[in-house]
Amino acid sequence: MNISSDIRNLISNRRTGYTLPAAFYLSNEINLLDIDVIFGQHWIFVAVEPDIAEPGDYVKVDIGHNSVIIVRDDDMSIKAFHNVCRHRGSQLCDAQKGSVGNIVCPYHQWTYNLSGELIHNEHMGEAFDKSQHHLKPVHVGNIAGLIFICLADKPPADFEDMKAAMTPYIAPHRLADCKVALQEDIVENGNWKLTMENNRECYHCVANHPELLASMYEFGFGYQPSPENAEKVQEFRDLITSENNRWAACGLPSSEIDLLDGCPTAYRTQRLPLEKAGESQTMDGKIASQKLLGELTQRNLGGLSFWTQPNSWHHFMSDHIVTFSALPIDAEHTLVRSTWLVHKDAVEGVDYDINRLSEVWRATNKQDSNLVERTQRGVKSDQYEPGPYSPYTEELVEKFTNWYIQRLEIAIANKANVIPIKAAQ
Amino acid sequence: MNISSDIRNLISNRRTGYTLPAAFYLSNEINLLDIDVIFGQHWIFVAVEPDIAEPGDYVKVDIGHNSVIIVRDDDMSIKAFHNVCRHRGSQLCDAQKGSVGNIVCPYHQWTYNLSGELIHNEHMGEAFDKSQHHLKPVHVGNIAGLIFICLADKPPADFEDMKAAMTPYIAPHRLADCKVALQEDIVENGNWKLTMENNRECYHCVANHPELLASMYEFGFGYQPSPENAEKVQEFRDLITSENNRWAACGLPSSEIDLLDGCPTAYRTQRLPLEKAGESQTMDGKIASQKLLGELTQRNLGGLSFWTQPNSWHHFMSDHIVTFSALPIDAEHTLVRSTWLVHKDAVEGVDYDINRLSEVWRATNKQDSNLVERTQRGVKSDQYEPGPYSPYTEELVEKFTNWYIQRLEIAIANKANVIPIKAAQ
Amino acid sequence: MNISSDIRNLISNRRTGYTLPAAFYLSNEINLLDIDVIFGQHWIFVAVEPDIAEPGDYVKVDIGHNSVIIVRDDDMSIKAFHNVCRHRGSQLCDAQKGSVGNIVCPYHQWTYNLSGELIHNEHMGEAFDKSQHHLKPVHVGNIAGLIFICLADKPPADFEDMKAAMTPYIAPHRLADCKVALQEDIVENGNWKLTMENNRECYHCVANHPELLASMYEFGFGYQPSPENAEKVQEFRDLITSENNRWAACGLPSSEIDLLDGCPTAYRTQRLPLEKAGESQTMDGKIASQKLLGELTQRNLGGLSFWTQPNSWHHFMSDHIVTFSALPIDAEHTLVRSTWLVHKDAVEGVDYDINRLSEVWRATNKQDSNLVERTQRGVKSDQYEPGPYSPYTEELVEKFTNWYIQRLEIAIANKANVIPIKAAQ
Repeated sequence: MNISSDIRNLISNRRTGYTLPAAFYLSNEINLLDIDVIFGQHWIFVAVEPDIAEPGDYVKVDIGHNSVIIVRDDDMSIKAFHNVCRHRGSQLCDAQKGSVGNIVCPYHQWTYNLSGELIHNEHMGEAFDKSQHHLKPVHVGNIAGLIFICLADKPPADFEDMKAAMTPYIAPHRLADCKVALQEDIVENGNWKLTMENNRECYHCVANHPELLASMYEFGFGYQPSPENAEKVQEFRDLITSENNRWAACGLPSSEIDLLDGCPTAYRTQRLPLEKAGESQTMDGKIASQKLLGELTQRNLGGLSFWTQPNSWHHFMSDHIVTFSALPIDAEHTLVRSTWLVHKDAVEGVDYDINRLSEVWRATNKQDSNLVERTQRGVKSDQYEPGPYSPYTEELVEKFTNWYIQRLEIAIANKANVIPIKAAQ
Repeated sequence: MNISSDIRNLISNRRTGYTLPAAFYLSNEINLLDIDVIFGQHWIFVAVEPDIAEPGDYVKVDIGHNSVIIVRDDDMSIKAFHNVCRHRGSQLCDAQKGSVGNIVCPYHQWTYNLSGELIHNEHMGEAFDKSQHHLKPVHVGNIAGLIFICLADKPPADFEDMKAAMTPYIAPHRLADCKVALQEDIVENGNWKLTMENNRECYHCVANHPELLASMYEFGFGYQPSPENAEKVQEFRDLITSENNRWAACGLPSSEIDLLDGCPTAYRTQRLPLEKAGESQTMDGKIASQKLLGELTQRNLGGLSFWTQPNSWHHFMSDHIVTFSALPIDAEHTLVRSTWLVHKDAVEGVDYDINRLSEVWRATNKQDSNLVERTQRGVKSDQYEPGPYSPYTEELVEKFTNWYIQRLEIAIANKANVIPIKAAQ
Repeated sequence: MNISSDIRNLISNRRTGYTLPAAFYLSNEINLLDIDVIFGQHWIFVAVEPDIAEPGDYVKVDIGHNSVIIVRDDDMSIKAFHNVCRHRGSQLCDAQKGSVGNIVCPYHQWTYNLSGELIHNEHMGEAFDKSQHHLKPVHVGNIAGLIFICLADKPPADFEDMKAAMTPYIAPHRLADCKVALQEDIVENGNWKLTMENNRECYHCVANHPELLASMYEFGFGYQPSPENAEKVQEFRDLITSENNRWAACGLPSSEIDLLDGCPTAYRTQRLPLEKAGESQTMDGKIASQKLLGELTQRNLGGLSFWTQPNSWHHFMSDHIVTFSALPIDAEHTLVRSTWLVHKDAVEGVDYDINRLSEVWRATNKQDSNLVERTQRGVKSDQYEPGPYSPYTEELVEKFTNWYIQRLEIAIANKANVIPIKAAQ
């Protein structure tokens, strides 16, 4: 990608502690840079194992103008490929999810197996070398059932560090033994970074998210003691300490890891107490599904939160899991995919009610979507200028934007890594 | 704004007496220039006093990608601000109209008073200087109840001349003592200049506006005597002279002022006779509201027309007022807001019928919108070329386009006044 | 048009035998080049004589941002004009079809006769020279009832060669004595070249077009004998030879002409046998309209196919005719207009049933539209790369893309022919 001097200046002149200049939310050129550098060279959360439980199951994921299919191979391994036929370029799969024997292009029936190899096509003659026309592969990573992909030739190696650190936290919830109870896509009318910035703070929760705060403490999301709330924050920190000790004694690692800044594969995790019954992110704090996950026997495990950069957040409770991915559609639209998972043997209507399971986050998603949209409209003004982050509640937002700017800076400095965008598109 | 040499050439080569080259109606770059220079450095009609009758009442006005709120302050003064929170850039107000105590950002509850001062926010710490984060103000002008704004740092000073000249014409209709009976927004699928050019002539009326011509003489709108209509134009001019004398004797200034060309704050006015009953712009020429405005006692006062550049037109009758503003949405879409006002004590269903009050201009708006849209489609053709204005009926159109080109020329010559557009947007 | 070096490189580096680079399907700049060079300087099929049977009948045809009206003049000659009033640029006709006495602009009633001459307008004064403001003409060609236009000043002269060659094939079907039984427009969500490439091969038919293959042999559409189908192709070629001889004996020229490559006005024709009853492109191969065309007396005449570049295909049977034109809307959308014609004396419900007449191609159009759309989505991927054409089934696709690239190369080399695009649009 040929990066204009305007954009280089915007990146190098960015003022820390302040929101980004408007062009980062509006410019098509920067959006292509984001798709190229941020979504093209980092690990992106895209699915969970239960999305593709059986051989031949696939999910389609669109990242800007690129489309990828994630497939369960016959040997139960997970593969990912660019969703483009090597013949005339037709998309292979156009459903969001499905199940196939082989991957057959509907245009001229070029047929690829679940490992992406071109195994059959007609009318190409004997000299045609099928091995030169396999599907283009995409790297796959798997952390205890959370599936990530990386479009780069050489993915960041520190994914293995995140995997090693996070597996003990996540594994007890046995994601692979869950089923998808509900999956919902919403299109937010805003740049994907506004979606992420909104997700990285709870300053906005008290006035906007009554359902979420029915069970969640806002203080768990990057709060520092401020003149207004020093006492409450300290109380909450004491509660975390005692609960984390209790959960650790049950074999559940719970303490905070914060690597949101400074490395390519950036993340944060912490197991956080919940209010009321303390069991789950529901309106009364009680579990929403009667069948506890994996071999868990206690209900009141609070919520294990896991945030990744650039694009996901997850909450693991004793009874259910909610995962979220944010994917750019274009500079001004973002897909947010939410997935609610329960034990695979839980029976809808008996063990869980789908509305009770999902009401908190469905309401929260809608509220957040409105906030993202009105911010997208606001930053269009010629008179918008970057505003100051709260030093007490927006630390994680700043880590996100700092990480983002740093990743662009490194990609530009190391220009050889920047994939060229198609000429004249 | 970095103005390309292509645009400079288009401006300097414009042929007078002819419609504008196509790029002026189609180009996104020129549209940004229009928003910057024409709508950013001139006085723009946006509302009437009754839109914001009480303290806390506001209207939101979008001008291209910019959004402004016009607010009635507690001391009854009128203020205007950019509709952008100084924290994360969220739009503050998203309804077209509303009423508030303070202006509270829904995102993180930063709270501004009706004078635009940031008076409260949480979590920003003691070192935070609120006074550096007040809302960005916009200049407000008020001519006997017609509210104008100017986004420039230094608005054109000749607004005061227009105000001094126009106040005696408008004041007797006592706009501030009216109420909004109906307000309608329509989106025209055309560039805002096609909307204005259409408004500045009545050559198209006879075949397109049967409702409007039920009471209006087409000759009042820039007609010069031509071979076809010399006699009728002369008759109409004689009628104007005698009626203007009659109205002047009642203390109502009525004679023509035409300053549509040559000054930044350009306008034209004239009180014009009406057909049939001669009282109002209705199908039978009779008043539509039984309660006459202000202290007016006579019904047959014709219609006082007031046209401003770049974006408004208004008609004041004895019984009601209609005002119109045209605001660019983007290069190919324009918002036209129409407001019908009657005496504040007039009772709907008793003193006036809303359909009878609005039927003429609602029909006319729809007809004009179709004409603008088909012209927008036509000028897209590679084979469109500027066509000649009628010397007898399109004088005011030419004054509009001449004014427009001259304002661009002056802004470009005096480059320091041109606000820079955000890089890379 | 100022052609960027990126595009020049894409054109000169195009790899033959492979699909086009993605920019040819996605770039707005290349789409403007296509409208300028391909659709602006070649003969474009746009209508059939029965579309405008009577004096004053017109059809409107939009080619990208340009609009043209094709009109039957009072002397029954066919004229075409740019659909733009010479006054203010309004579109003259906005219906797809209609009938008029004169062409009257609805804006200010400038009136043109059916020869495009400005014959009346008001308010322009005596010095105004009407003769300088006639409608801008467009060249018209007519091959036995198929109407082509050319927007260039100097149209390619070899249209006359195509006309001379094709008239004996088409004339016996007496298109001018037909009526339009059905006309349908569909918007395909893809670049016009994907529409054309899809039309130029039947490799995709077997899995996608059950209705079409009910009567059509796939082998007639550019197949070469391959290892898989050598025997069937030879059988089909033998059938063609014997059937062509039979039809030639009836005075119906039937043998293949293939001039799809190498000349500006490129085309291909052949009369092809049909399956089942062999009479018509219907589900059972029997005629759909009982009234045979012209003076034809035999039903089993197969289908005379006629393909033109850049934008049409046609099938003439003994009982009905189907014609298709593909016209770019923008880089990613294409209008496909399909017209079903029967003998003008055939009576709907008696001689033909509209559903039976149209079911094959309506189903086929829908299937093709889906294929074009999924290919458009696929080629957007950064990982799309041009794929290899089948040497046995995609020869005609390659001829189309080769012709296309060659036409661009010639236009660029002979830059004087390239009409300048409006500055800054």
